[in-house]
Amino acid sequence: MQEWQPLVIGARSGLAEEYGFVRCEGGVCAATGMRAAGVAAGLRKEPNRRDLALVVADEACACAATFTQNRFCAAPVQVSRERVANGRARAVVLNSGNANASTGEPGCEVARATAAIVANGLGCDEEDVLVASTGVIGVPLALDGFRTGVPAAIAALADTTEAAHDAATAVMTTDTVAKESAYEGTVCSGNERICVHVGGFVKGSGMIQPNMATMLCVLSTDAPLTAKAARTALRAAVGQTFNKVTVDSDTSTNDTCILFATGHAGGPAIDEASDAYPAVAAAIRSVCEDLSRQIAADGEGATKLVTVDVLGARSEHDAEVVARSIANSPLVKTAIFGHDANWGRVAAAAGKCGVPFEQERVDIDLLGVPVLRAGLPLPMDEDEMLRRFEGPEVDIAISLGEGEASARVWTCDLTHDYVTINGDYRT
Amino acid sequence: MQEWQPLVIGARSGLAEEYGFVRCEGGVCAATGMRAAGVAAGLRKEPNRRDLALVVADEACACAATFTQNRFCAAPVQVSRERVANGRARAVVLNSGNANASTGEPGCEVARATAAIVANGLGCDEEDVLVASTGVIGVPLALDGFRTGVPAAIAALADTTEAAHDAATAVMTTDTVAKESAYEGTVCSGNERICVHVGGFVKGSGMIQPNMATMLCVLSTDAPLTAKAARTALRAAVGQTFNKVTVDSDTSTNDTCILFATGHAGGPAIDEASDAYPAVAAAIRSVCEDLSRQIAADGEGATKLVTVDVLGARSEHDAEVVARSIANSPLVKTAIFGHDANWGRVAAAAGKCGVPFEQERVDIDLLGVPVLRAGLPLPMDEDEMLRRFEGPEVDIAISLGEGEASARVWTCDLTHDYVTINGDYRT
Repeated sequence: MQEWQPLVIGARSGLAEEYGFVRCEGGVCAATGMRAAGVAAGLRKEPNRRDLALVVADEACACAATFTQNRFCAAPVQVSRERVANGRARAVVLNSGNANASTGEPGCEVARATAAIVANGLGCDEEDVLVASTGVIGVPLALDGFRTGVPAAIAALADTTEAAHDAATAVMTTDTVAKESAYEGTVCSGNERICVHVGGFVKGSGMIQPNMATMLCVLSTDAPLTAKAARTALRAAVGQTFNKVTVDSDTSTNDTCILFATGHAGGPAIDEASDAYPAVAAAIRSVCEDLSRQIAADGEGATKLVTVDVLGARSEHDAEVVARSIANSPLVKTAIFGHDANWGRVAAAAGKCGVPFEQERVDIDLLGVPVLRAGLPLPMDEDEMLRRFEGPEVDIAISLGEGEASARVWTCDLTHDYVTINGDYRT
Repeated sequence: MQEWQPLVIGARSGLAEEYGFVRCEGGVCAATGMRAAGVAAGLRKEPNRRDLALVVADEACACAATFTQNRFCAAPVQVSRERVANGRARAVVLNSGNANASTGEPGCEVARATAAIVANGLGCDEEDVLVASTGVIGVPLALDGFRTGVPAAIAALADTTEAAHDAATAVMTTDTVAKESAYEGTVCSGNERICVHVGGFVKGSGMIQPNMATMLCVLSTDAPLTAKAARTALRAAVGQTFNKVTVDSDTSTNDTCILFATGHAGGPAIDEASDAYPAVAAAIRSVCEDLSRQIAADGEGATKLVTVDVLGARSEHDAEVVARSIANSPLVKTAIFGHDANWGRVAAAAGKCGVPFEQERVDIDLLGVPVLRAGLPLPMDEDEMLRRFEGPEVDIAISLGEGEASARVWTCDLTHDYVTINGDYRT
């Protein structure tokens, strides 16, 4: 009997480890020059639950951000997008419990008023304060909670791992765990070696197919990136990571991803042409990838983190369309929930999306096991597949046999808990 | 307080009632010259469950068909597509329990062999026999059941309502009800008035976003349509009906929709230029629309038939993209399951799909109640909304304020039962 080899996914470059970076503690406070806090401001129904986060740089610094492309973008997105255009900011205030979306011009006024409260407390220009919200759509956001919550958050600001974690916790909605990541490493910058940190947190569990950034994410680095380099690095990282996550194909109205670059690591400014740039950009990408995987693993109701690799496509675009078609297929996602090695649904999902290929050239691996070669099923050991389904991750790889391009997308399974969570979220 | 009027969907033309057609009994046997049968051939795990259907015209006649556009199209699709190209056929044999998909050339040989068994029993050319299958993907289809089942089906062939129903029942998989429809009316054809019937059945409950035809559908009419007119009428009807249904955004490998036109109603041949053509085409469309609504209402695990109307779009394409984005949104579908009047998710789903519009011009009605006007929420009586959720149907209407084009799509809610059905379908 012929031995079938698993598909070779291929090494990926541009990640932090390649440049000697290692994981570290500290989340969004790992970078020097950053402080954070998370407090309970009474914005959510549950009393004493943290619902207001504040992240502050010691002084206004380089800042880049990406936002949702949803046409129904929320008020805080409109306000922050305008303010970050100049490439600098000092702080961001985030709240859960209310998205401040579909609230019109009054919603924008509330967003600006919350920023003004922060600016007043920090003694900075209110144009340097960004805002982000998550929660229910179409309900006016009341200022009351911010009037007491923001001063409390300012009083609690600290540069500690705990403070970073409090902020990460305050933006959680249906998330079951706080999602943080940080890397540190040294890079040559000019004539010196500087120690660089990149860290951050993200929230997001449902309404996740970012196509821009995921729900709410705050990143920071002490590398002295120029505003332009920060924007370039952030956009590249988001495109490879958050924009490749899909929990339920729903793009939020509020997606926001902000990167502060404090410059506290020292050394000359780093732009895209600097020798140090690739390493810093790789560290940013790795933090984003780590957070992206955490989002998919914590997708609403999820029991499995699913990685879909499409190989052998004619173009990256084709590969991504096929990967998303598989990752968003309710039939694929429920089969994974049911520990059903139903690769036929993977084949059907690949075939439905309009990308041309010949089924006679397609190979599929499920859970690392070759199940389809040249369009024909291979004998499958069901017991072995069930055993492999016990792990926390499911890998799906499909080769189209059309070219050299590839894409990777992360998702999760579709479960009873997803239906429960979203069937009675608002009521 | 201002009174808000519901959006006006607008009258739809080209349906059977416009031409004086009325509903009738008989399903696929409503048209004279058609017989059907459904028998238990042992193709499914459950013994004695009907799993083989046969639909036969009294003699070879005009025939048109549409098929899935999924690249992983099944063997019976490949065989039938080739055979119907000449615009004529005598019979179709359908089975449930096994899709004969991802089975390669051996699968095509099995499909041709089943047709040969039918041709042998009927005494006709095997090229005039079509095949269709539904069920599990990637498992070889055994001929054994057909060797005994086809002769039993031929013996049971009848032109009765019961025989039509047996055939409709035999193709059911996760369907909870058999889906049939028929219309009758008189049309002027040449110098005479002829009595025309159009009827048929369909199966389909999951893996439904046809984009060609839905799962398996057999239609018949006794109108003397030419092969070309049958094809034109069928394609137009399928485009307006089955292709506008989405249960779970998954397009099947096996979608097949076949129309026989026996000509038994008499009169001269009807082509696209005939006076009688619009009425017959309208009756075909109405049967397809009726069956489409039955599919959506019987979507896997569904508790509600959901109709999404998009108005005021710049183009029909834009309208359909927005309608599908709403209809496929897991967050919208779970909210409906939870009787949650969460129009914010409708807005978010409309905004995420890339179709450009200004949120300040958008109006939304939910369950016939205006909930959003010019992008801003209206006061909503939650008790009244809960009361309206008690009905079997949910209507969502959204006007983009960009133009005059519109589209209608049917879907269903996303429930625990969908997850249950698809989480352990194969095992």
